[in-house]
Amino acid sequence: MAAERALAMATCTAPVNIAVIKYWGKRDTDLILPINSSLSVTLHQDQLKTTTTAAASRDFTEDRLWLNGKEADVGHPRVQACLREVRRLARKRRGGGEDAAALSLSYKIHIASENNFPTAAGLASSAAGYACLVSALARLYGLEEELSEVARRGSGSACRSMFGGFVQWQRGERPDGTDSLALQVAPETHWPELRVLVLVVSGEKKPVGSTAGMQTSVETSPLLKHRAEVVVPERLAQMMQHIRDRDFEGFGQLAMRDSNQFHATCLDTFPPIFYLTDVSRHIIALAHRYNGHHGHTKVAYSFDAGPNAVIFTLADAVAEFVEVVRRSFPPATNGDQFVRGLPVGSAALPPELVAAVLTEPVPGAVQYILHTKPGPGPQLVDDPSQHLLGPDGLPRSRA
Amino acid sequence: MAAERALAMATCTAPVNIAVIKYWGKRDTDLILPINSSLSVTLHQDQLKTTTTAAASRDFTEDRLWLNGKEADVGHPRVQACLREVRRLARKRRGGGEDAAALSLSYKIHIASENNFPTAAGLASSAAGYACLVSALARLYGLEEELSEVARRGSGSACRSMFGGFVQWQRGERPDGTDSLALQVAPETHWPELRVLVLVVSGEKKPVGSTAGMQTSVETSPLLKHRAEVVVPERLAQMMQHIRDRDFEGFGQLAMRDSNQFHATCLDTFPPIFYLTDVSRHIIALAHRYNGHHGHTKVAYSFDAGPNAVIFTLADAVAEFVEVVRRSFPPATNGDQFVRGLPVGSAALPPELVAAVLTEPVPGAVQYILHTKPGPGPQLVDDPSQHLLGPDGLPRSRA
Repeated sequence: MAAERALAMATCTAPVNIAVIKYWGKRDTDLILPINSSLSVTLHQDQLKTTTTAAASRDFTEDRLWLNGKEADVGHPRVQACLREVRRLARKRRGGGEDAAALSLSYKIHIASENNFPTAAGLASSAAGYACLVSALARLYGLEEELSEVARRGSGSACRSMFGGFVQWQRGERPDGTDSLALQVAPETHWPELRVLVLVVSGEKKPVGSTAGMQTSVETSPLLKHRAEVVVPERLAQMMQHIRDRDFEGFGQLAMRDSNQFHATCLDTFPPIFYLTDVSRHIIALAHRYNGHHGHTKVAYSFDAGPNAVIFTLADAVAEFVEVVRRSFPPATNGDQFVRGLPVGSAALPPELVAAVLTEPVPGAVQYILHTKPGPGPQLVDDPSQHLLGPDGLPRSRA
Repeated sequence: MAAERALAMATCTAPVNIAVIKYWGKRDTDLILPINSSLSVTLHQDQLKTTTTAAASRDFTEDRLWLNGKEADVGHPRVQACLREVRRLARKRRGGGEDAAALSLSYKIHIASENNFPTAAGLASSAAGYACLVSALARLYGLEEELSEVARRGSGSACRSMFGGFVQWQRGERPDGTDSLALQVAPETHWPELRVLVLVVSGEKKPVGSTAGMQTSVETSPLLKHRAEVVVPERLAQMMQHIRDRDFEGFGQLAMRDSNQFHATCLDTFPPIFYLTDVSRHIIALAHRYNGHHGHTKVAYSFDAGPNAVIFTLADAVAEFVEVVRRSFPPATNGDQFVRGLPVGSAALPPELVAAVLTEPVPGAVQYILHTKPGPGPQLVDDPSQHLLGPDGLPRSRA
């Protein structure tokens, strides 16, 4: 017998992504095949990332999983689907041959995963989480192929987090899902001026989870069907062109329209689903007043399945718009932590802007603003001290 | 010369109507021709009505108009359109002949109109208002024909207030609008158990008026186009059948779906239009929990271009649901005036209903509940003491 490695460990990080042409609804719930293609911007991991360590050892007696330091159910069907698919690919790659250095596929697995952002923020943590899980497992088993199809089995939008920059998730046509893949439209260096402001809204718990919500939409919303069949194919082509041209006017307008249409199909669902709140409405109205004042699209909002706003803008508008948000939603406390992430300069608002754009302030409605930009896809963490699991295969204490 | 009548006066009342298959969007803004047919329930005038007196006299020197006691602009194009159309029909009816008793078409007109409900309630006052104006003018000029086409020129949905009970507004095909008419589907006596609860929500001023809003929707919402062309024709036929069958399950479900879809097309408009607020969302969620608890559709909501909820239900559910609303939205003051209109019995809520349906109360969110039912179309007021104008042709003091 060849000497198999006793303990192997790999750590990766992976990003969150925000769709500007939205995905909502599966045509196959088991394989997670969408009813329409979608397109997203990968956000920078300096601000929002998941880190995952995967370890395999002949000494492990069972598969185990820890999320943000707490043990979780490793038997979750989606975790199992990712694990099974990665092992299947590893087996296929090895073919009939024996690779002495290869990790045994029969070893049990320990996985630890952490986010560097509050999960309460309602950001797309499952996309980053499953992209990171698949990346770490792939490293562990020495896979080098394109794995968006595997990440998709964890969470649909996770497939888009397998690439940096601007990413399309192709709907695909085949019933087995092998052509339902993510593809990079442009790298994160393509549009250096693009910036992202995440407005984290204080609020209630999400009323309806995405998985349940989107299936109800598929079953009950006639408008969602029309959106998927007719509207999205046109919009996807337009959005790719706007990105290629770095046309912020076109990009921003279409991002807002598509966000609104996604929430419209939620409302057309029966019973209806609401992710936007009165605070979201205030942010939307503010963005339109701000753009109206400037006479063109300076900021564009996009809302996922929650009330938080993601604002796309260009670097030269950040300071002014952040000040507009601060004046519109004065921070509840002293405001020290109101702006986080990339530095934001200070801006004085011209009186005519104040008169045209600001209305009655809504104190405390926005908890904080996170300033970030497009970023790269999953990264390997080389430094062993960064592993989330210790040499014993258990989570390191993070004191 | 024949002795023409010196002063003539006629007073009518007309009802509000609530669409259960909604109208939103014109294909001809001048003639007020809709992009889709619609269907409404006429509400009883004991609770909600407009009263209008129209007078003509050779002594009047100019046309004048008073709304709720205040003089208003009689030159408003829609008021003028109704006046012009009524006079045209009167002229046509008389043909070449001279009718000594007929009112001179050259006399100036005085009009006074009042609502018996607060206009601040955001109820469809323009539908009742224009239906009433046209009814009073028709009486004044002795017209007896179907006049929904004329009322439509005042406000699209006014044509539906020209009939009691259940009323369809046929989209029509002709470019001149002569086939865009209201038709009674069933009289108000057809479904004696049907009840209506208007939940008047405290709130802000309507953000976008219907006239401007619907044209923006027609221009920018791809979903509205699909709704008008594909969804509404099917739904209209279904809704007529539910009404004929007095099938509350079918009627209520479809009314809710159609209300939601109308608001979905508002959200798909660019910039988006929001008429539903967080309070509206609370009412919607409450209705679904209530129906869920009972295992079938006991109440159905419908929202027009504002946050107020119109609840359809059957007589035997009124007392219980009113108590559910009272517990969910405890009245801000002592609650004396919380329930208005038709009498409502008292109901004790079973503990299992309380546990399943009630959540954290939102005090003061609903101002009051108006209890009403389907009612008849415009009525002639025979009693001369009820005229809103005095013998001098000026508004009576309403001390």
